[in-house]
Amino acid sequence: MDKEIYMDSSATTYIDPEVFEVMKPYFNYEFGNAGSMHSKGLKAAHALNLSRDKISKILNCNFDEIIFTGSGTESINLAIKGFVFKNRKKGNHIITTKIEHHAVLDTCEYLEKQGFDVTYVEVEKNGIVDPEKIKNAIREDTILISVMYVNNEIGTIQLIKEISKITKEKNIIFHTDACQAGNSETLNIEELGVDMLSLNGSKIYGPKGVGILYKKSTIRLEPLIHGGGQEFGLRSGTENIPAIIGFTKALEIAQRDRNKNNNYLLDLRDYLIENLLKIDDTILNGDIDKRIPNNINITFLNIEGEAILLKLDNEGICASSGSACTSKSLDPSHVILALGRPYEAAHGSIRFSLTKNTTKEGIDHLINVMPKIVEELRGISPVTLKMEDIENV
Amino acid sequence: MDKEIYMDSSATTYIDPEVFEVMKPYFNYEFGNAGSMHSKGLKAAHALNLSRDKISKILNCNFDEIIFTGSGTESINLAIKGFVFKNRKKGNHIITTKIEHHAVLDTCEYLEKQGFDVTYVEVEKNGIVDPEKIKNAIREDTILISVMYVNNEIGTIQLIKEISKITKEKNIIFHTDACQAGNSETLNIEELGVDMLSLNGSKIYGPKGVGILYKKSTIRLEPLIHGGGQEFGLRSGTENIPAIIGFTKALEIAQRDRNKNNNYLLDLRDYLIENLLKIDDTILNGDIDKRIPNNINITFLNIEGEAILLKLDNEGICASSGSACTSKSLDPSHVILALGRPYEAAHGSIRFSLTKNTTKEGIDHLINVMPKIVEELRGISPVTLKMEDIENV
Repeated sequence: MDKEIYMDSSATTYIDPEVFEVMKPYFNYEFGNAGSMHSKGLKAAHALNLSRDKISKILNCNFDEIIFTGSGTESINLAIKGFVFKNRKKGNHIITTKIEHHAVLDTCEYLEKQGFDVTYVEVEKNGIVDPEKIKNAIREDTILISVMYVNNEIGTIQLIKEISKITKEKNIIFHTDACQAGNSETLNIEELGVDMLSLNGSKIYGPKGVGILYKKSTIRLEPLIHGGGQEFGLRSGTENIPAIIGFTKALEIAQRDRNKNNNYLLDLRDYLIENLLKIDDTILNGDIDKRIPNNINITFLNIEGEAILLKLDNEGICASSGSACTSKSLDPSHVILALGRPYEAAHGSIRFSLTKNTTKEGIDHLINVMPKIVEELRGISPVTLKMEDIENV
Repeated sequence: MDKEIYMDSSATTYIDPEVFEVMKPYFNYEFGNAGSMHSKGLKAAHALNLSRDKISKILNCNFDEIIFTGSGTESINLAIKGFVFKNRKKGNHIITTKIEHHAVLDTCEYLEKQGFDVTYVEVEKNGIVDPEKIKNAIREDTILISVMYVNNEIGTIQLIKEISKITKEKNIIFHTDACQAGNSETLNIEELGVDMLSLNGSKIYGPKGVGILYKKSTIRLEPLIHGGGQEFGLRSGTENIPAIIGFTKALEIAQRDRNKNNNYLLDLRDYLIENLLKIDDTILNGDIDKRIPNNINITFLNIEGEAILLKLDNEGICASSGSACTSKSLDPSHVILALGRPYEAAHGSIRFSLTKNTTKEGIDHLINVMPKIVEELRGISPVTLKMEDIENV
């Protein structure tokens, strides 16, 4: 990757070379359609079954509880829309949080237009959703709760096990968007207690264009995409075998190596946070401990995030403001706003999401250039917030 | 591909080596998220724009009329559901045909459950839908007509230009599933006169997991997948750049070489048809002329198609009965039934779909082994239809 210092792995990762190797034969040699009744088709079907089996073992669930989709966003849409459209007669109320990814938020907004009622639970100032607040939002007609496992902007790890205790007690289906959790957290369904879980390949050093939805076997969904009836009738379309093979390998590696990578990254993360916070008028967004080991999200008061990104890019450093999905929009991050920060402060927030191969040298380069960038940009900034303006920092 | 003789290209194709070459750098070098505001993201966005631009030129449409999706099935679902859900107040009636792919048929069945009214127009005995019958099915409240360009089982080419004249006159939106047309037919939107057109990568020697929907800019759709707002807000999810790059290259090659390939394949097709029809009690399904140059679909009376497939597979020949999407189901092909054949005759229908690299040697091997296979299987068959039982062959 040349001299590029890529610190935007929460937007997307490269494909691990080991992952790419296992995908290769399926592009132009074992290219069969898993629905075909000849040896080439049967080999594809076998590869599909084997992948599903491996994933179900990693997640500690049943074979037929894994549905392959085309992305994390699609998995989330299938989980939420698929469930509420199929189970509308049971109730009309959905609970989620203010800090979800747009795949959840925009889906919920669409469902509001379809007549569903949605409660968006507040987040605490440290970026953690209080399970008690979820509990308090539950109504007689609540049928689904969707809370993300790890926030994509500030990396905070939500209290999934605590929330699942509540949803189990109340007999409400619980979905978690785990797209940012696969590299560092457990995905053991039994432990987590969730009923549905979404994951995608492009955040775990796997391919783009593939995701999975774990769905407890007793749950019935309305498909989003009708057709040939693939994926137990829940997601039609020729199975994307190379991507599925790659996803599976990526997930195996991610879960196998997560403790090792976590240890390595924790030190780098804390070193970077410590040094960036030495710059005047900076705030760490999200709890300092309850966050994944590769996420650093810092507000540099009185600077436009976009200007920082461009300066960093000149220095060979790739980072992001907000999430990649919306970073081209000039709206400030809904996550930073949900932490209670003023509008202007939300604008100057930068996410550094380290890869598993980020080096201390890369981090030192960032630490070295950042004060100059901040000084330069503050010199031309029309905004002059003070730290006192930010409540309870 | 060893000694394997792959004659199932309508199920799926291998990726052209030239296509795979252009995809490669995007897996683990230019892997950025097209939504990211750094050079890696901008390169991805540039590749995305360039692909969209190339495709719009091939289809002779505008840049913003191309929407990338995760499959042909998804494109079809987005076109049909997206249109009727967004335009329900204009009318409640949809027209399609009895020989569509399940992506269309199952979507329409789902829409019937949602209160829409669907007319499934009959097909003529030669596998061509009569445009007059489409015209006659039009009602005051018809809002959408969906007719496939090329049938996936029998390869018949539908009269898209004639149908679009009717839909234009009546001011009804016309979608065509062109998934089987990309290798041999024109995709010039201006010429075809369609308002929406679906295509996918895995039938044109491109990657799986990617499709496009052409949608005239004045048409409004309800997205199937909500989230980050990619693809003009119509298909959220991180853009699958390697697949999009591959799709684009595959489409360029397919449309560039189609006349050359058509000439080559027409001779092989007709030679194969001529020789297979020498076997007693065989029927060609679909018009002998108005079919794509790589499709041969033949009924071998009084034999189970599945048994033929297994015997052929032993000879290294990959073929299919029905379409791959449903070939594992034991139901006879809805397409062959729609031609007016009896149930038993539909069972023994085999599709040979040649690749652009199928050789005369491969064809000769098939011609050589087929009579023995037929003889052997007929010897143990409980069914004894006669040619006279098949009307109007």
